[in-house]
Amino acid sequence: MLLSQKTIVTVLLAAASPVVAVWPIPAHMTTGNVSLLISQNIAITYNGAPIVYTYGFEPDDIRSSAQIIEGGVSRALSAIFQNGLVPWKLRPKNSLKNFEPDLYFGPKWVTVLNITQTTKNTSTDFQSKGGEVDESYNLTLSTAGVATLSAFSSTGVLRGLETFVQLFYGHTDGNAWYTPYAPVSIQDKPKYQHRGVLMDVARNWYEVEHIYRTIDAIAWNKMNRLHLHATDSQSWPLDIPSMPEVAVKGAYRSDLIYTAGDLEALQKYAVARGVELIVEIDMPGHIGSLSWSHPELIVAYDAFPYSWWCTEPPCGAFNLNSSDVEEFLDKLFADLLPRVAPYSAYFHLGGDELNANDSRLDPGVGTNATSVLQPLLQKFVSNNLARVAAHNLSAFVWEEIPLTWNVTLDNSTVVQTWLGESSIKTLTGQGIKVIDSNYNYWYLDCGRGQWLNFANGEAYSTYFPFSDWCDPAKNWRLVYSHDPANSLTEEEAKLVLGGEVALWSEMADGTNLDTLLWPRGSAAGEVLWSGNKDPLTGQNRSQMEVSPRLNEWRERMLRRGVMAAPVQMVWCTQADNSTECSAPAGPGF
Amino acid sequence: MLLSQKTIVTVLLAAASPVVAVWPIPAHMTTGNVSLLISQNIAITYNGAPIVYTYGFEPDDIRSSAQIIEGGVSRALSAIFQNGLVPWKLRPKNSLKNFEPDLYFGPKWVTVLNITQTTKNTSTDFQSKGGEVDESYNLTLSTAGVATLSAFSSTGVLRGLETFVQLFYGHTDGNAWYTPYAPVSIQDKPKYQHRGVLMDVARNWYEVEHIYRTIDAIAWNKMNRLHLHATDSQSWPLDIPSMPEVAVKGAYRSDLIYTAGDLEALQKYAVARGVELIVEIDMPGHIGSLSWSHPELIVAYDAFPYSWWCTEPPCGAFNLNSSDVEEFLDKLFADLLPRVAPYSAYFHLGGDELNANDSRLDPGVGTNATSVLQPLLQKFVSNNLARVAAHNLSAFVWEEIPLTWNVTLDNSTVVQTWLGESSIKTLTGQGIKVIDSNYNYWYLDCGRGQWLNFANGEAYSTYFPFSDWCDPAKNWRLVYSHDPANSLTEEEAKLVLGGEVALWSEMADGTNLDTLLWPRGSAAGEVLWSGNKDPLTGQNRSQMEVSPRLNEWRERMLRRGVMAAPVQMVWCTQADNSTECSAPAGPGF
Repeated sequence: MLLSQKTIVTVLLAAASPVVAVWPIPAHMTTGNVSLLISQNIAITYNGAPIVYTYGFEPDDIRSSAQIIEGGVSRALSAIFQNGLVPWKLRPKNSLKNFEPDLYFGPKWVTVLNITQTTKNTSTDFQSKGGEVDESYNLTLSTAGVATLSAFSSTGVLRGLETFVQLFYGHTDGNAWYTPYAPVSIQDKPKYQHRGVLMDVARNWYEVEHIYRTIDAIAWNKMNRLHLHATDSQSWPLDIPSMPEVAVKGAYRSDLIYTAGDLEALQKYAVARGVELIVEIDMPGHIGSLSWSHPELIVAYDAFPYSWWCTEPPCGAFNLNSSDVEEFLDKLFADLLPRVAPYSAYFHLGGDELNANDSRLDPGVGTNATSVLQPLLQKFVSNNLARVAAHNLSAFVWEEIPLTWNVTLDNSTVVQTWLGESSIKTLTGQGIKVIDSNYNYWYLDCGRGQWLNFANGEAYSTYFPFSDWCDPAKNWRLVYSHDPANSLTEEEAKLVLGGEVALWSEMADGTNLDTLLWPRGSAAGEVLWSGNKDPLTGQNRSQMEVSPRLNEWRERMLRRGVMAAPVQMVWCTQADNSTECSAPAGPGF
Repeated sequence: MLLSQKTIVTVLLAAASPVVAVWPIPAHMTTGNVSLLISQNIAITYNGAPIVYTYGFEPDDIRSSAQIIEGGVSRALSAIFQNGLVPWKLRPKNSLKNFEPDLYFGPKWVTVLNITQTTKNTSTDFQSKGGEVDESYNLTLSTAGVATLSAFSSTGVLRGLETFVQLFYGHTDGNAWYTPYAPVSIQDKPKYQHRGVLMDVARNWYEVEHIYRTIDAIAWNKMNRLHLHATDSQSWPLDIPSMPEVAVKGAYRSDLIYTAGDLEALQKYAVARGVELIVEIDMPGHIGSLSWSHPELIVAYDAFPYSWWCTEPPCGAFNLNSSDVEEFLDKLFADLLPRVAPYSAYFHLGGDELNANDSRLDPGVGTNATSVLQPLLQKFVSNNLARVAAHNLSAFVWEEIPLTWNVTLDNSTVVQTWLGESSIKTLTGQGIKVIDSNYNYWYLDCGRGQWLNFANGEAYSTYFPFSDWCDPAKNWRLVYSHDPANSLTEEEAKLVLGGEVALWSEMADGTNLDTLLWPRGSAAGEVLWSGNKDPLTGQNRSQMEVSPRLNEWRERMLRRGVMAAPVQMVWCTQADNSTECSAPAGPGF
């Protein structure tokens, strides 16, 4: 086994052949090894007509397919020409020159990109509604430099443009960009229709720029949902114009508020990128922040010790047998839902972690008996489902609503699971549609230890070394190993619409948002778009195949303005991951 | 126990009284509750003469105490006036106005800061040598607005200026700054003389700006050492001008190199802030990157499977019985040490994780027998100690050199421990000086999972969920709980010079450097400056006392340009940590 060192080094360099690192990996892709340059003057057509675009173009009318595509083309070319990746970290050390095309000996050029959208947009397309949009696309690039992109929908075109971007690199010689992979032929479509990121903007405050940037990254990863956990017991930053006191008093600071204008701008920005922004107002628990403006509606706000009344401070839930609450909700939904409906098919009603003890303090209830609470909760949820349906929206609820409280839902409601595979199995077995955020795999805030303080003494030693409840941190390999439909029958699996990674914000804000979300969220993105199994073999994709692509994808995101964390050290990204930076299978490991 | 909610809220608001959040906490501090404004025209004197300063002043001659102090004053006033913290996150919601002084009813002003340095600087002061500098200072601020700062050394003055900065806040009303804490009286000095951060700039590449920023943060935390782990088997980014091939071929990219000019600029920048930059060239293991330029000196470079030959890929160690190696080291140290000596008392020789198996491949050794290796290693280390001593420097080595290999050191050598308390006990029991980086507490890279890839099958399931070797992540509470002298006798404890937090870079680079280092490094900083026990009671400081100060300190670092991660959500920082965001002691938790 003691190969000479020289032999080893030679083998490694030879093995490090280029990978086409499109992320997420397309359903079908063939590539070649002809290099083509691409010019900033590339001709682009859309359904036969030339597209004139300017960098930074943002659609004014998101119902205009021409504007949607113009925006997508603008961003794609900006990503290629302004933020092109020079892949020195991804080639063997100091060997990039061997990978790059020679610019001075008649290189061929990509001359044209012809975009065809085969189905006219419908209004629901532009509103990016609930998985009804066909996101598939075909992309080809001939060695003669002709690129074609065809899709049924404008969203499919956006997905294909993102793939087009990822074929190109920046050249070290300056103002030149190239692909080494022509000819290219790609047929691509998503495995799951719901591919999301949950941002918790209630436990910590995020400037809107952080939300915009997250929408960008979601779209680059061919994900299509931003779930805004917009309110919680800690704060209520979402402005409700008909009741301004709610946010003014409920936000962490009276001026740190997402205005109606902010929300609409975010929604339009998202739609223009094929992303649907889903608003959650969590209830009937997790709503203590209303106590600052409407204390009469809330029970157990900031009750002590919190562990009797909820899972984390401060507690606070709606009174469950209160006409005041119902009146408030009428007003709240009449204000908010008309602003949601133009841009989304969904509204998220929350419903996690309600603690029955709260109702012992509830003046209209006075007991924690399930026999009393269940009918009250059924009525509470049913009223909300009716409000949501009245605006032609479907509801999301967290899994506790049906599983803990046996609340009956309507057919359009989708349940978000987080407690594990058996929840998905049970719900889909009952014919209920599910999206999954299994905390053991897709809670990206986990594994950095407690945010609670412990007094010296017993609690201190019990909780030492202060790991959190969902330790360990979800390494990308762990994220990638999870498919929400893993243990389901084929019939059950059809009811899994997809999933979301979640970043709860007890210890997250704008400073660590990017490094916590990316590229670990990308790992889930590929599971949801491509699946985590090789479609040919049916086996799990090897980490050794996935890792180099993820390394490259991280570098691309970084160049495009998202502070994605490193996957491996540069020594690994320059080496061949199938032999280096991998656990040896042999004896001694 | 069912207090009414109103009662609870009232109690909480009343309890949230201001804390003086100086970090690290001074040895002795009394404060009052008189508010004083501070003007940008404050008069500042140094040993009786006025100081004229400009923002951004950087000492040209770090041997001039006037320039050192001028630089410190410039940075202090910039921190107060340009990056002042408006502490809305640290007061109860929307109550900051109650905390801030009224600007329109005759507020008093801080009119003067008189700085006295009672001992003239010696040349070793300016070179910030090995703990010989007295860093103590006294700081007072009278209600009449007169501030005095006295210290023995210019470094002590810098420490006092940092404390002065932390007394002040920015006012929401715009261009006003104030302290609410006059009169102030502080007598302060460090517990440990060596308070450091280890940055690994070999496993990933860091732009110099990241190193500069880390030096800033080290100084703000009253830490005084930046340990640059400058080379390793993965890369050699440190230029050695007499042998340019070493870095040109050994760096990840031939132009990603810390030039001699970069090193000197960093050293001077550090000294000007009372920080000593300590360079480590790790050997005889962890030096495989030399193989790119000097393969004849190195054994087992990138040998496969790595686990036979070293702890992580790529392997690579010096030949241990080679006159070529000794000649190379003569040349290396003759080049590097004269550039280290003007700015440091130390050079770090590394010495961790040497794998005896390497010597089976070593042409001059051919065995892994300790009886053969030990004398060779003794000679290797002794030669290096002589080289270091010849430049009037003291050496650091990692603990394996004396503990695994029984190498005898000279009296001036300090051993850096990382494997735990028993190592410190053994070494100090032998009269050997120690600095500690216990990996269970102070390795800040831990707990984010594996960077190695695992093939599907046995290794995959064995390593699932892919936690790393030093899981869990070191939460600040865990970092804070560690004192290197915890289990030592008084006599042994005297030999503990201090410690360092370490950020190894297998999964760290400029994107996550700040959020991984800070404020967890600050927790170690306070342990090393102030101790983690209350000096009056001798008990561990309560997390409930420390946490609000750490929250504030994080906000201050953030304002001053370091992306420190959040400690708790804003709800906690606005609440009273002694009752909220703390684990209740009562039943039910």
